[in-house]
Amino acid sequence: MRIALLGGTGDIGAGLALRFGRDTDHELLVGSRDPEKARTSADEYGTELEDRGLDAAIKGFENAMAADRADVVVLAVPAYHLVDTVEAIADRLGPDTVLVSPAVGMKRDESGFHYNRPGAGSVAALAAEAKPDGVPLIGAFHNLPAGGLADLDRDFEWDTLVFGDDADAKSTVIDLADEIRGLRPLDVGGLDNAAEVESVTPLLINVAMENGGLHDLGVQFR
Amino acid sequence: MRIALLGGTGDIGAGLALRFGRDTDHELLVGSRDPEKARTSADEYGTELEDRGLDAAIKGFENAMAADRADVVVLAVPAYHLVDTVEAIADRLGPDTVLVSPAVGMKRDESGFHYNRPGAGSVAALAAEAKPDGVPLIGAFHNLPAGGLADLDRDFEWDTLVFGDDADAKSTVIDLADEIRGLRPLDVGGLDNAAEVESVTPLLINVAMENGGLHDLGVQFR
Repeated sequence: MRIALLGGTGDIGAGLALRFGRDTDHELLVGSRDPEKARTSADEYGTELEDRGLDAAIKGFENAMAADRADVVVLAVPAYHLVDTVEAIADRLGPDTVLVSPAVGMKRDESGFHYNRPGAGSVAALAAEAKPDGVPLIGAFHNLPAGGLADLDRDFEWDTLVFGDDADAKSTVIDLADEIRGLRPLDVGGLDNAAEVESVTPLLINVAMENGGLHDLGVQFR
Repeated sequence: MRIALLGGTGDIGAGLALRFGRDTDHELLVGSRDPEKARTSADEYGTELEDRGLDAAIKGFENAMAADRADVVVLAVPAYHLVDTVEAIADRLGPDTVLVSPAVGMKRDESGFHYNRPGAGSVAALAAEAKPDGVPLIGAFHNLPAGGLADLDRDFEWDTLVFGDDADAKSTVIDLADEIRGLRPLDVGGLDNAAEVESVTPLLINVAMENGGLHDLGVQFR
């Protein structure tokens, strides 16, 4: 399978690239608005995996080029770039492409981080409104700490919550997430359940900030 | 310490009464609007603990009477009764009484359960607005599954997130929660961080509903 990680030069993108690179045989396309930056990051991820004796297929492209060639397109961009990014790649997406949103909108005040819920109901709903009809949008990979994900020396047992209204596409993403060692995908229903998933991310940051000794937290349901 | 569990005849109240009864030596006051119901529930909890060879001090009172005698008052009532309940006990509360809100407002639609955020910003903020000045309000015990909590045969390793603007009162509640076997209290800052904590509860229910084999879920940050 070809997986495009748009915004793949960023922190969550790096973590997903390294974990997919280590734990799966999928072809990885790192996307960025700047193709040069995408190639540089792809080379870095490839080098890190080679240093560990792994031979991963990771290449860098401009976002639309990466999306054009992919079966699954992960929108690992900041929430405020999500709609732009979907619009920029829209004509490259077919009904067989699965769009995945891990994006979370947050704001910060004196107390800590807060979920910044868009008027659409969730960040994923914004992406769903912007995408072409017939292309499925699935939410996944929201509540993973970027630092811990990108540190291949860190073992974890984290859950990732997967939601969406297209059962086949959701199943594809659940199977994909399940390939990452230590990650357990859990189905959490449809797109209407997105807000509660997205709002866990600021909570994880607040818990880490307030409790010395805890950092790079994920979550496990048990 | 005297702990009043208002709404202590309900599901979360039952779980907290049984766990505090088993794992601590605190005096427990079960509160209800109906004192007869409170006494019946208190007797049931006492009997269950006695059957396990434990001698717990659990008595039932009308809510205001229970609150009057307590160091910590847990508002284990449905979110839509929270303000009523705080108003009904307001003149029994002194600055040394710690009010605790585990309440979460939820609504349900075809997709599942959703956090029903009040205009005040959170359910805890509603209680904070209704309470007398000078009485601290702390949030805790939101994301615990009632059934699992009340089943003393179930061992767990769950986290409970504790928030509030009064550091001493928060510390009291953290210490109290820590006495329940298997429960880890985590500080999550001030009252402004309440919404993200409260919105985990509908998420837990949705995850349990969508994943066969998972039920009575709590959460662990790791």
